[in-house]
Amino acid sequence: MTIVPERTAGGADLELQLDEILTAHHGGKLNIAPSVPLGGARDLSIAYSPGVAEVSRVIADDAALTKRYTWSDRLVAVVSDGTAVLGLGNIGPRAALPVMEGKAALFKAFGGLNSIPLVLDTTDVDEIVETLVRLRPSFGAVNLEDISAPRCFELERRLVEALDCPVMHDDQHGTAIVVLAALRGACAVQQRRLAPLKVVITGAGAAGVACAEILLAAGVTDITVLDSKGILVPGRPGMNDVKAELAARTNPRRLSGDVDTALAGADVFIGLSCATLPEELLATMAPEPMVFALSNPDPEVHPEIAARYAPIVATGRSDFPNQINNVLAFPGVFRGALDAGATRITERMKLAAADAIFAVASDDLAADRIVPSPFDPRVAATVADAVARAAGEQ
Amino acid sequence: MTIVPERTAGGADLELQLDEILTAHHGGKLNIAPSVPLGGARDLSIAYSPGVAEVSRVIADDAALTKRYTWSDRLVAVVSDGTAVLGLGNIGPRAALPVMEGKAALFKAFGGLNSIPLVLDTTDVDEIVETLVRLRPSFGAVNLEDISAPRCFELERRLVEALDCPVMHDDQHGTAIVVLAALRGACAVQQRRLAPLKVVITGAGAAGVACAEILLAAGVTDITVLDSKGILVPGRPGMNDVKAELAARTNPRRLSGDVDTALAGADVFIGLSCATLPEELLATMAPEPMVFALSNPDPEVHPEIAARYAPIVATGRSDFPNQINNVLAFPGVFRGALDAGATRITERMKLAAADAIFAVASDDLAADRIVPSPFDPRVAATVADAVARAAGEQ
Repeated sequence: MTIVPERTAGGADLELQLDEILTAHHGGKLNIAPSVPLGGARDLSIAYSPGVAEVSRVIADDAALTKRYTWSDRLVAVVSDGTAVLGLGNIGPRAALPVMEGKAALFKAFGGLNSIPLVLDTTDVDEIVETLVRLRPSFGAVNLEDISAPRCFELERRLVEALDCPVMHDDQHGTAIVVLAALRGACAVQQRRLAPLKVVITGAGAAGVACAEILLAAGVTDITVLDSKGILVPGRPGMNDVKAELAARTNPRRLSGDVDTALAGADVFIGLSCATLPEELLATMAPEPMVFALSNPDPEVHPEIAARYAPIVATGRSDFPNQINNVLAFPGVFRGALDAGATRITERMKLAAADAIFAVASDDLAADRIVPSPFDPRVAATVADAVARAAGEQ
Repeated sequence: MTIVPERTAGGADLELQLDEILTAHHGGKLNIAPSVPLGGARDLSIAYSPGVAEVSRVIADDAALTKRYTWSDRLVAVVSDGTAVLGLGNIGPRAALPVMEGKAALFKAFGGLNSIPLVLDTTDVDEIVETLVRLRPSFGAVNLEDISAPRCFELERRLVEALDCPVMHDDQHGTAIVVLAALRGACAVQQRRLAPLKVVITGAGAAGVACAEILLAAGVTDITVLDSKGILVPGRPGMNDVKAELAARTNPRRLSGDVDTALAGADVFIGLSCATLPEELLATMAPEPMVFALSNPDPEVHPEIAARYAPIVATGRSDFPNQINNVLAFPGVFRGALDAGATRITERMKLAAADAIFAVASDDLAADRIVPSPFDPRVAATVADAVARAAGEQ
């Protein structure tokens, strides 16, 4: 059974077989490796009893030394309740675990950070907050993952209030950071300014809302966001609090209606909705538009079709150019926040992360290279430095 | 500053300096190591999106496959609230963390099991149970550690009821298993039977109660347990429920009074109390007694003094012969339980573990070798096999 008939940008065949994927996952994707020797009595006396008692005593006297003598303050908990896993929806915490293990593995491979998956058998926001507050001494940061909207907004807000450590819902902000970086890259290729762009975002879930927020913060003023019922505009029925609040701060021309209304004359399409974008609407966009069709595994419009209308096309897929991949952001963002001893991941730190990703790509930009490769070793370090600097300036 | 002027049984100098201990603990004692390659686009497509979605889908269809395709079902959560850390008492979860990291490292080094420390910022039994129930999909077993008595008894009982996975409070049962193994070894050296021994246990906390329980299960009938107020005997004031219940099932001669009364004519002293045992009382024990002075770092009686009266002396320290060290038990116990797919760690599995430890030592027993070395590679494997077999027989 062939899962993904994938090709790289260079054309190499990446066809994945279910067997190969399952075999790679046998026993899970993470191991614990002790970082101290344990081969003899003396080792044991240092790492465990009686020596470890001295370390406990030192921390009992000064809790700040937890940072120096345990792994916890640089440990990222990857937390999910399994309610919005990839494109699979609410499949529960057990089925979400392979994704969280993968995320933890990426934190190590790309950011040099230890990370453990914690999947929760509750979807109640109060209970999730309470659980993480109780576990607080066990970790140094929280990466929320695959949690359904609009619960994810309240959950993140409340965790940021409740925990004195960095908390970020990656489906929101990781995506938003990379989208902004890609948009900066696209603007540089086209020698256009970001702020005057007319941007249309389809999808008002985790990623859509966060993308709108970061673009507002970056100075874009004409943003139109749509959900499955149409354009968000003040007074429209069927909007939750988050959408109503966003409607008030976007859509300055107070458009109402559907995607055809929104897209007419727009410069940028950002698809985060799993809906299909009819080809004919692309023809109604402004000249030289940018099309980011980011739904996975099926983009809102096939990139080869989009390319007939748009000189710059991005997707979430690794088999087409311009992959908008969160791995460009989250390892460096958390690394930078922890390096700086930050207790929050602020809008300013997110903007700095986007600028840093753009900066890495900037010496080699092209219409099919608006973001760096996820395997460019400069990315995480550059993002971490920028985020730590932004944290330090606050 | 010299922490522990330690000597091995062989006399090698193990003197530990605070600097050396603290340096060894810099950054903590655990690392996460991804067990899949992540160096290229194809690796990422398998371990993360899009490939991982297939693994999630497979588990969503059949939750039993979590066991095969994630690390969780063989992952031991080492859980503490920091209320009874080593000999340091209630120093809180942060100061407990170095001990839990050490324990997790030992699980890997001695049992080949992945393990993560979870320290909790609550000491409420209801809240701890609730928290672990919510986290249940994240791990496959729970090792409770350094939780104060009598809360530890209720907590363990309630977790065993609430979680469908192995749960063991190691301060109770790990200690009890190794004490029973050592007592079997001592009996073999002295060519005596276990059941008729008159046993005195000082300390009715986690370890004392569990030792009494396992000895009762092993067929010892004359056990006298003391707390700081004296011998546990039915009707005595100042006993909590656990002590009252234990009093009813031990002390068949219905002794009352203090340690002098208990020790007169006793065959075995097991010290788990941090109290001091006056030398003159050793002289009142039965001929050829066994003295297990297990308090750490200061045994109830110095082993060199005890040796004047008792041919067999054991302590908890690595610098004297016959170290009663939980690392002989817990890695193999959890390994065996997980190998067998057991959801409980039963009395029978604990007895099997003690027998297995004794069996490893039995070909080379001597008065100063009643238990195997913790570094004997046969121990964990033999214990795991015996525990898995005992689990399978039930």
